[in-house]
Amino acid sequence: MPGYSARPPAIPTILIDDAVVRVTRWDFEPGAATGHHVHGMGYVVVPMTDCQFLIEDAGGERRVTSKAGEVYRRDAGVEHNVVNGGAEPMSFIEIEYK
Amino acid sequence: MPGYSARPPAIPTILIDDAVVRVTRWDFEPGAATGHHVHGMGYVVVPMTDCQFLIEDAGGERRVTSKAGEVYRRDAGVEHNVVNGGAEPMSFIEIEYK
Repeated sequence: MPGYSARPPAIPTILIDDAVVRVTRWDFEPGAATGHHVHGMGYVVVPMTDCQFLIEDAGGERRVTSKAGEVYRRDAGVEHNVVNGGAEPMSFIEIEYK
Repeated sequence: MPGYSARPPAIPTILIDDAVVRVTRWDFEPGAATGHHVHGMGYVVVPMTDCQFLIEDAGGERRVTSKAGEVYRRDAGVEHNVVNGGAEPMSFIEIEYK
């Protein structure tokens, strides 16, 4: 079944959505996933916890660990599914600039 | 003595400085201050700890408490001094967009 995912959904909470930015906190229980998506805006991610990312994209699957506060930036156009590949809940804040 | 400040300095650590953003982590021991400054760029602040801000600006002095993760955005042109008005170390990450 295309699109079917046994993974629980990551939970987005919009913190700010104005003319300049959209800021979303993403909370993941272990195994949770965003679902496949394409980023329409450039963005900065601020991990609020240590994050054990499992990234699924055109290149396949890879694991990336980011410590709390280990910020990174990406341009618009990134296409992937983001999974909590760890055994602990994880959370990050995503700042998209319009 | 103008400009003299008995407060210890807040410590800035540049995490990213590229064509799109400048991301700085600011660490404050209790009583530490940034020193008076004017923001040349719009910015988003992500508190990494609970923050007991003491803000000194043209309007005087006021105390603002932000919980960890309680994000806020400001436009360029803000002018103030930011002090850790609490008894605990505080830290936030500032994302300035160019």
